[in-house]
Amino acid sequence: MELLKQKILKDGVVKAGNVLKVDSFLNHQMDVALFTEIGKEFYNRFKDCNVTKILTIEASGIGIACVTAQSFNNIPVVFAKKSKTKNISDDVYTSRVVSFTHGNETDVVVSKSYLNEGDRVLIIDDFLANGSALEGLISIVNQSGATLVGAGIVIEKGFQPGGDLIRSRGIRVESLAIIDSMSDTSLTFRD
Amino acid sequence: MELLKQKILKDGVVKAGNVLKVDSFLNHQMDVALFTEIGKEFYNRFKDCNVTKILTIEASGIGIACVTAQSFNNIPVVFAKKSKTKNISDDVYTSRVVSFTHGNETDVVVSKSYLNEGDRVLIIDDFLANGSALEGLISIVNQSGATLVGAGIVIEKGFQPGGDLIRSRGIRVESLAIIDSMSDTSLTFRD
Repeated sequence: MELLKQKILKDGVVKAGNVLKVDSFLNHQMDVALFTEIGKEFYNRFKDCNVTKILTIEASGIGIACVTAQSFNNIPVVFAKKSKTKNISDDVYTSRVVSFTHGNETDVVVSKSYLNEGDRVLIIDDFLANGSALEGLISIVNQSGATLVGAGIVIEKGFQPGGDLIRSRGIRVESLAIIDSMSDTSLTFRD
Repeated sequence: MELLKQKILKDGVVKAGNVLKVDSFLNHQMDVALFTEIGKEFYNRFKDCNVTKILTIEASGIGIACVTAQSFNNIPVVFAKKSKTKNISDDVYTSRVVSFTHGNETDVVVSKSYLNEGDRVLIIDDFLANGSALEGLISIVNQSGATLVGAGIVIEKGFQPGGDLIRSRGIRVESLAIIDSMSDTSLTFRD
C-alpha cells in the first residue's frame, strides 16, 4: 500500500533493537484518515471472504480494527484483552502471548459469547514480527470453532520469522507494508 | 442520547459490585455503527470548541475515540499508554490511575511529542465512575500546557462521585448516558 509506505518512510524512525517507531501515526498518536484508507485496503483484499467478525488485540490494534469494520458494513469487532477483569466472565478462550515490544508474557482472553463456530473471522493487527500475538489470536479462533479467513497486518517485519512461519501453515496473511531490512539510514520494502 | 440508552437497557447486564457489563457492544465486542452515532453526538456537543486533538486511554477508549475523530475532520487521536514500552521515549507526561474495573494502580504515559500548549484537547472515554482515569488524563493535559475543552464520556455512573467532582472544578463533562441507579431489576437514567 503505497500511501502507507510513504508514511513509514516520512515519519517512521528506526531505533536500536530492530524497533520501528511509528507512534506518530499508528500506535500512540493515530492518523484516522490513514486508518480509513487502511480499512478500505483490507476490504479490497478480503471482500470476497464473507467476513462476519473482526478480531484484534489490545491496545494498538483496536483503532485500526474499528475503522476497518466500517468498510465491512460495520461488522462487530472483538478485541482480545490482556488481563482478566471482573467485567469478563470466566467463560473465555485464552492464549499466552509474548510481546516483542514489552518483552513480557501475557494471557489474552476473549469471551466465548463473542466468537463461535458460525463466525468467519478476519484478524487485524498493527504489527507482525515474531508472530506471537497473531499466533495467540489464531489459537483463540481455533478454540472457538470459527473459520479463520486470514489476517490483515499493517506493518510486517519481513526479516523476523512470524509472517513466513504462519503463511507456511496455509494461513492467509496480508500485510500492507512488508519491511525486508532496516537500519538508521535505510529501509527496504518487499515488492 | 436515546439510541445509547436503549442499547444499554437492551444489552447491558448489571453484575455484583456496581458493575455494568456492556461488553457485548462497548468494551470487548464493539458495535462500530453505534460508535459512529456516538462520535456524531460528541461532535454536536463540542463542535464549537475548535478541538485539535482527542485524548483517550487504552484500551476501551481507543475505538470510540478513533471513530469520533472522523466526525471532527480526522483530527489526531492520542491514547495514554498503561505501561512504558521501549517504543516510547523517556520524554513523557505521566499520571497514576486507579482502575475501578481491575482494582489496581497503573502509571499512564503520553509522549511529550504528541501534546503541547498549542492543542485544544477533547478527552474521550467509555466510562466515568470514580473518575480516576479522567483525572489522570486531565493531569496529562495540564502537564502539557494544552487547553482542555472538556470530556466526552459514553456512560457515566452518576451514583459514583467522579462526574460531580470533576464538574465542580469547572471542567465540562458531557456524558451521553448518566445512570443514577441500577440493580438486577432496574436501571434509571438521569434526564
